[in-house]
Amino acid sequence: MYFHVQQLINEIEQDEPDPAAANALQEGLGGQFGEMRTMMQYLFQSMNFRGPSAKPYKDLIQGIGTEEISHVELIGTTISRLLDGSPRYQGKPTDPVDAPGAKGAIPLNIALSESNIHHYLVGAQGAMPVDAAGNPWLGSYVYNSGNLVLDLLYNLMLESTGRLQKCRLYEMTDNKTARSTISYLIVRDQAHENAYAKALETLGVNWRTALPIPKTNAEKFPEVARLLEMGLQSKQYSFDLTNQSEAGKIYQGLSPSGDGTQLDASEQAPAGAPMTIGAERFEEFAPGADADLQELIAATAAMEMADIDRTFGEMR
Amino acid sequence: MYFHVQQLINEIEQDEPDPAAANALQEGLGGQFGEMRTMMQYLFQSMNFRGPSAKPYKDLIQGIGTEEISHVELIGTTISRLLDGSPRYQGKPTDPVDAPGAKGAIPLNIALSESNIHHYLVGAQGAMPVDAAGNPWLGSYVYNSGNLVLDLLYNLMLESTGRLQKCRLYEMTDNKTARSTISYLIVRDQAHENAYAKALETLGVNWRTALPIPKTNAEKFPEVARLLEMGLQSKQYSFDLTNQSEAGKIYQGLSPSGDGTQLDASEQAPAGAPMTIGAERFEEFAPGADADLQELIAATAAMEMADIDRTFGEMR
Amino acid sequence: MYFHVQQLINEIEQDEPDPAAANALQEGLGGQFGEMRTMMQYLFQSMNFRGPSAKPYKDLIQGIGTEEISHVELIGTTISRLLDGSPRYQGKPTDPVDAPGAKGAIPLNIALSESNIHHYLVGAQGAMPVDAAGNPWLGSYVYNSGNLVLDLLYNLMLESTGRLQKCRLYEMTDNKTARSTISYLIVRDQAHENAYAKALETLGVNWRTALPIPKTNAEKFPEVARLLEMGLQSKQYSFDLTNQSEAGKIYQGLSPSGDGTQLDASEQAPAGAPMTIGAERFEEFAPGADADLQELIAATAAMEMADIDRTFGEMR
Amino acid sequence: MYFHVQQLINEIEQDEPDPAAANALQEGLGGQFGEMRTMMQYLFQSMNFRGPSAKPYKDLIQGIGTEEISHVELIGTTISRLLDGSPRYQGKPTDPVDAPGAKGAIPLNIALSESNIHHYLVGAQGAMPVDAAGNPWLGSYVYNSGNLVLDLLYNLMLESTGRLQKCRLYEMTDNKTARSTISYLIVRDQAHENAYAKALETLGVNWRTALPIPKTNAEKFPEVARLLEMGLQSKQYSFDLTNQSEAGKIYQGLSPSGDGTQLDASEQAPAGAPMTIGAERFEEFAPGADADLQELIAATAAMEMADIDRTFGEMR
Amino acid sequence: MYFHVQQLINEIEQDEPDPAAANALQEGLGGQFGEMRTMMQYLFQSMNFRGPSAKPYKDLIQGIGTEEISHVELIGTTISRLLDGSPRYQGKPTDPVDAPGAKGAIPLNIALSESNIHHYLVGAQGAMPVDAAGNPWLGSYVYNSGNLVLDLLYNLMLESTGRLQKCRLYEMTDNKTARSTISYLIVRDQAHENAYAKALETLGVNWRTALPIPKTNAEKFPEVARLLEMGLQSKQYSFDLTNQSEAGKIYQGLSPSGDGTQLDASEQAPAGAPMTIGAERFEEFAPGADADLQELIAATAAMEMADIDRTFGEMR
Amino acid sequence: MYFHVQQLINEIEQDEPDPAAANALQEGLGGQFGEMRTMMQYLFQSMNFRGPSAKPYKDLIQGIGTEEISHVELIGTTISRLLDGSPRYQGKPTDPVDAPGAKGAIPLNIALSESNIHHYLVGAQGAMPVDAAGNPWLGSYVYNSGNLVLDLLYNLMLESTGRLQKCRLYEMTDNKTARSTISYLIVRDQAHENAYAKALETLGVNWRTALPIPKTNAEKFPEVARLLEMGLQSKQYSFDLTNQSEAGKIYQGLSPSGDGTQLDASEQAPAGAPMTIGAERFEEFAPGADADLQELIAATAAMEMADIDRTFGEMR
Repeated sequence: MYFHVQQLINEIEQDEPDPAAANALQEGLGGQFGEMRTMMQYLFQSMNFRGPSAKPYKDLIQGIGTEEISHVELIGTTISRLLDGSPRYQGKPTDPVDAPGAKGAIPLNIALSESNIHHYLVGAQGAMPVDAAGNPWLGSYVYNSGNLVLDLLYNLMLESTGRLQKCRLYEMTDNKTARSTISYLIVRDQAHENAYAKALETLGVNWRTALPIPKTNAEKFPEVARLLEMGLQSKQYSFDLTNQSEAGKIYQGLSPSGDGTQLDASEQAPAGAPMTIGAERFEEFAPGADADLQELIAATAAMEMADIDRTFGEMR
Repeated sequence: MYFHVQQLINEIEQDEPDPAAANALQEGLGGQFGEMRTMMQYLFQSMNFRGPSAKPYKDLIQGIGTEEISHVELIGTTISRLLDGSPRYQGKPTDPVDAPGAKGAIPLNIALSESNIHHYLVGAQGAMPVDAAGNPWLGSYVYNSGNLVLDLLYNLMLESTGRLQKCRLYEMTDNKTARSTISYLIVRDQAHENAYAKALETLGVNWRTALPIPKTNAEKFPEVARLLEMGLQSKQYSFDLTNQSEAGKIYQGLSPSGDGTQLDASEQAPAGAPMTIGAERFEEFAPGADADLQELIAATAAMEMADIDRTFGEMR
Repeated sequence: MYFHVQQLINEIEQDEPDPAAANALQEGLGGQFGEMRTMMQYLFQSMNFRGPSAKPYKDLIQGIGTEEISHVELIGTTISRLLDGSPRYQGKPTDPVDAPGAKGAIPLNIALSESNIHHYLVGAQGAMPVDAAGNPWLGSYVYNSGNLVLDLLYNLMLESTGRLQKCRLYEMTDNKTARSTISYLIVRDQAHENAYAKALETLGVNWRTALPIPKTNAEKFPEVARLLEMGLQSKQYSFDLTNQSEAGKIYQGLSPSGDGTQLDASEQAPAGAPMTIGAERFEEFAPGADADLQELIAATAAMEMADIDRTFGEMR
Repeated sequence: MYFHVQQLINEIEQDEPDPAAANALQEGLGGQFGEMRTMMQYLFQSMNFRGPSAKPYKDLIQGIGTEEISHVELIGTTISRLLDGSPRYQGKPTDPVDAPGAKGAIPLNIALSESNIHHYLVGAQGAMPVDAAGNPWLGSYVYNSGNLVLDLLYNLMLESTGRLQKCRLYEMTDNKTARSTISYLIVRDQAHENAYAKALETLGVNWRTALPIPKTNAEKFPEVARLLEMGLQSKQYSFDLTNQSEAGKIYQGLSPSGDGTQLDASEQAPAGAPMTIGAERFEEFAPGADADLQELIAATAAMEMADIDRTFGEMR
Repeated sequence: MYFHVQQLINEIEQDEPDPAAANALQEGLGGQFGEMRTMMQYLFQSMNFRGPSAKPYKDLIQGIGTEEISHVELIGTTISRLLDGSPRYQGKPTDPVDAPGAKGAIPLNIALSESNIHHYLVGAQGAMPVDAAGNPWLGSYVYNSGNLVLDLLYNLMLESTGRLQKCRLYEMTDNKTARSTISYLIVRDQAHENAYAKALETLGVNWRTALPIPKTNAEKFPEVARLLEMGLQSKQYSFDLTNQSEAGKIYQGLSPSGDGTQLDASEQAPAGAPMTIGAERFEEFAPGADADLQELIAATAAMEMADIDRTFGEMR
Repeated sequence: MYFHVQQLINEIEQDEPDPAAANALQEGLGGQFGEMRTMMQYLFQSMNFRGPSAKPYKDLIQGIGTEEISHVELIGTTISRLLDGSPRYQGKPTDPVDAPGAKGAIPLNIALSESNIHHYLVGAQGAMPVDAAGNPWLGSYVYNSGNLVLDLLYNLMLESTGRLQKCRLYEMTDNKTARSTISYLIVRDQAHENAYAKALETLGVNWRTALPIPKTNAEKFPEVARLLEMGLQSKQYSFDLTNQSEAGKIYQGLSPSGDGTQLDASEQAPAGAPMTIGAERFEEFAPGADADLQELIAATAAMEMADIDRTFGEMR
């Protein structure tokens, strides 16, 4: 069973809209080696896990899988922010249902020449479950052979490939909104790479100097270096509410990446960052409420929350 | 940010393996109107939500979306259980790496005539992200127009279609393992149908006698009737750890389904049911550890958890 | 612009339900060489046609394309009839909303072992836009190079392949409902093969004894022989309401199939056969109206048509 | 059975070629919510319709489905016109088979930087069955649950989404060729939205002020306003040649869109506009006839039509 | 540049037709981890290889890739043999164009209940580029990151997964035709697994006891044991006609699989086995030549080969 | 069984990098009518061939199929060369693992605005198995009906379409690297078109003046004219190592293209051109070896080849 808090797993920096960067980041969300894929692969491996005596391995996969749902949320939100406002259209705030095309204006013309046109035509300046070339995410991406060593080996390769692609993404754009998320994911992918490499170490493989794969020297990227100094590449959170995860039996000791750090699984979750709700975009008819609807929405939002508050327990 | 507890959202009854039922249930997991789709659709709608003044609507969608992740876990586990042991192979427990095909035996022969052969060939008697006809899940299923009314209308139709398909699934098999999950999802789909119908009521639509769609009389199905009596069709949990959800401003008052119940959003989550880990299946080489690997796994599992335990906070 | 009459292009014989035959016929509807493909290919070739001086070729393609829409209607209806009632469920006619699964019955159990499970689970004992292996129809099937000779050559190959597949379908089932449509389409595919072969003759190719491709001796199939005797393989209708088609400039003279017949384009359309509407299927919740809805539907249907009748012109 | 007239359902205005607009319009043709999808969805719903007592509902769906074939023809032709001549290549009219690449020229270079390269490489400056991101049309788009209320609800949502996307398309380009078709389809989508909303009204739903969805104020778009004044959003044609449609029993009374108009189903079809045939494009080898072939084509076209004329009946 | 000899890379044993086994083997041909995929992946990795100083690695990949083309030929031919004659139809050999459906017979009825219906309907009792669930092979399967270590790691996982699936296939059928090819591929996959594991050893990884992955004890399968005794799991052929491959610099020394054998790259190719041409299948109209065509074919085949023979050089 | 030589089938000219041309050429590699498709179609037709008396037809298809593998190699390598170095990044050769993004540089920024972003993000400036619109290659492209005449007719149409598309590609770019391969393939496609047309001639068709299709006058393209003068359009190599091909019984006599040449099947293979290995691309982390790995690679490459050389036989 899963729970949610209204916080992002990491902060997204403010910068200008950048639809080309938004499109590139779609690879990290809906691509074959993106966050939707890692998330789904680990959830399926957890559900179908075999071998009660190997619980620490299941817990490791389940914990990373839970983190990936938050990564989907993070990178999806980042893409939305990069798209948001890119048409540079200024609707009149006094008129709840605006008429952006009135008199024949073309405020969405940007869709014809930048990014994926679906971002403006099918979505409303928001993220989509597709890759950077527009291919929809595919269930056949998910790998779950049932063989423990093979699944771990694939997961190691998957995280390494994810990190490789994000290093390439880093080199494609210097937009700060994009880079704050790219850099965070580069470091977290390495933490996960460490997790699967360490699990394979417990099963006999000696990586010696082979890791990290790829040898990216990502620490030369300034935004990444800052996170590495905080040791984020050697931490794994459990995201497990009732403290039953045994992943720490694997995620401990010297990092297989050879950077001299100790792996640490002692924290439940990172601190988190505030979530906000996107502004109305009149030119997209999103959310598309006219004066009447706005009034009904306002009435709903103004309802007294007292009774509800009383019944909710305090949990965190 | 998401969290996990090692519990299923509902109990799965024990019954015989049934690969044909397992395959049928794949529609409810990886089908166009299955749980992976509702989960992804609501997560994307939440990430891309527009209109700060409409927060209760976002919270409603986010909360149902979080529940759907647990539904993916529930139905995926159900499928695994229905497949588990279906080849009727009895490996020798004393030999950690068994040789099921030794002397030319064909313990997996069942794969040629029942269910989806991939359940035995690509997976290892486990769930997959495909539908009942074997089509992989597709990113283009996700609908997120950005227009609030349209998104709610689609969601209503989506939940209704999901319920319709599950009522048909109910009529396809009387395996108790399958039915315990099918029945639970029939009732939860109706709870979600109520949520979106109610949200549209706050925006002006009067459903009168049109709901529920479809008119299934599912209460005539004994397993469903039991859950309806408990009022599960009129409850919506928040799954929100820090009590910030305003979904209760919408999910309240008389049910739009016309069954005379009051909608209730006062609970955070259901009680949950225990999770177990699947047994080894030698004929699948899953998890496939020989004596050496078994020893390494055992060593890892025996590691002292004391330090880790100490550092985890109590949360639930 | 297109028009419709409430008649099928050919009669469908009555026989027992046969879901396996229904599934096989899906290839002829939604397969790569089925009727949806010919229909779409010819409509796109017509829309994109180049060369005003070559109007007879466009008219030929447009006319066959229009016929293919009626073939989609014919084979789709045939599939529906083959599926209809296959679960052998007998609902109580006195209760408009029946409860087929009440007391735990499994009237749709047939879906697990026959045909494509989607016929009962996603559809309601009806045709779907997929092939016999369950693959959805794909836009990339459509071929339209813009080069006249290539397009004609492809169309010839397409019709020949369609006929080949239908001859194989004929050999798979002796259900009369299936065969009445299969046989009709075998003969019409040959009429279209003749059309494209003749068009290529006007452009210089001499087919000598090569046609028909394939050499199927389909005239040995009794149902086909009957239609060949009526000369249906050598007729092409225009389906053109205002008599502007010049296809007859091509579709004339000796048949390239070498059967000694004369090609004839003088008729606008065949006589047609009555259409009926499928019965309710309670076990599918289709159409799924309870007593209240039934009353509303009846009220609508009883409305006076007089005013409407008066305003419609007589056209046919 | 279907018929055709050599007329477009609406006039397409003349303007400059515009390949980027052509590509955007592909969404309206081959996209998930485009005209190919509505057409196929309604044809399948008609073929598989259940419930003889509900004939007016079937006739409504069948009539709109027939109109959608003409919409496919309209938007496909519009795309062809927008692409036609965009390479700005001027072939020598005296040489029937031109050599546009002779001496190494690159007349098709535009394909590398505008629109979908397939428009020039796979097609010949013509429409294709793909969406604006290049995804081929997919059979799994078609929704046909067999449940009447669900099918109507989906159709309502489908038309509303189609209209939303076309309003966004309007805001992307001011090319007159594109806009004449976009505007027409915005208004017709609303007419269909009214049809399905009204059908749901007869089944008990009260839309009050919720319609139209989306609230687009499209009447502020000048080209749309002109058509609204003509009442095109409140008319539904039967396209039924023999006057058997009972759709008028549903499509009547006050429009559910709340614009005060009366719904009117009394006309069989609109007046139509002339069709023309695209010019040769030498740089595409389309139709690609050299002097010899041209002569053969001319001979065919010059054939006496007298006999054919005599045999065709007068129908319209 | 590639060359061919008219020999199979390994002998296929004779046994009864078995369409269910044929369908299962499709996974090994057109599945995500089948021979078409390894072939394409290695050909692309070779074409795009980077790093002139790493030529032995490229040669290793290129050599295995070339072998995989022969594996495609081997498994494809095996599938054809398993399908061939499965309908048990006995056509009259005296009539070159037979009429299997004459008098309404249904010789292809087997297609409705066994295997993939496309084997009889789209193909003619032959192999197809699809997997065992009927999904067509997909270009997005191919992995080629450009990073040497990652590509090798993926290739290792790919071969291991291929071997795992073939071990499962072995357990599904005891048809000798199927098993002769399955067993051969199990052993060759291990040879390739050794190749990529050894390449990673030269780059620093110490596999210790982790290999082979999976631990299958395939040597307990009698047909496999025979091949292992011949040392086929520790040999890699170059398939390089001009002796320029440096793969032997990697493929040498002790096998990483821990079976005590020495890796050996000294042979160019195995001995090969005879190829034969499939018989006519009248019920499929394959090849479908009537008496006239048979005569033309015979005339072509009887042509004097003398001149041609004279001009061909002796190469092997 | 297949063999390889380390030579390209034709020389690729040197020119500047050109990612837009690279993307256009992807159609010729991974498109529906590209080289991967012809290769796979002919290999499957060969494996599944029926009719022992028709061996010359099988040999013809097999020989062309073998050539197509070399075409895949040629066009794939061409695409890699066109992409190689396009980011204009100059890494420091003294540091084996470079840090192209250090200090926040964006050397891969070109990926956002040219070509297919996957060329830089998923691949590493290399070819991929996709078409020019980014669609992955699909197994359902392959046509193999089993009917000899139909297969030959399809193959003729396939080669003609391939040539048509390559003529259009020629008109899209004047990059010499691109054109050297495009021109070669235009001429070889015509050779194959001649092969299938001639095979159909032996089966009775008289093409008269209809060929070549399309009438492209490609001889007006200077690079093509040069190859036509060498007669490359009328030669077919066997690529058969042991001289057993009987394709020359078909591929002989006057060319069906009507250019007055004689078809000639007397050569085994063309001369070939040197292959080179791509340079390191630091900004892609390809191959991504740091100083340690470089040393290990160098050690492997320096290994003594003497023993290996001794054992390889001389073959060519």
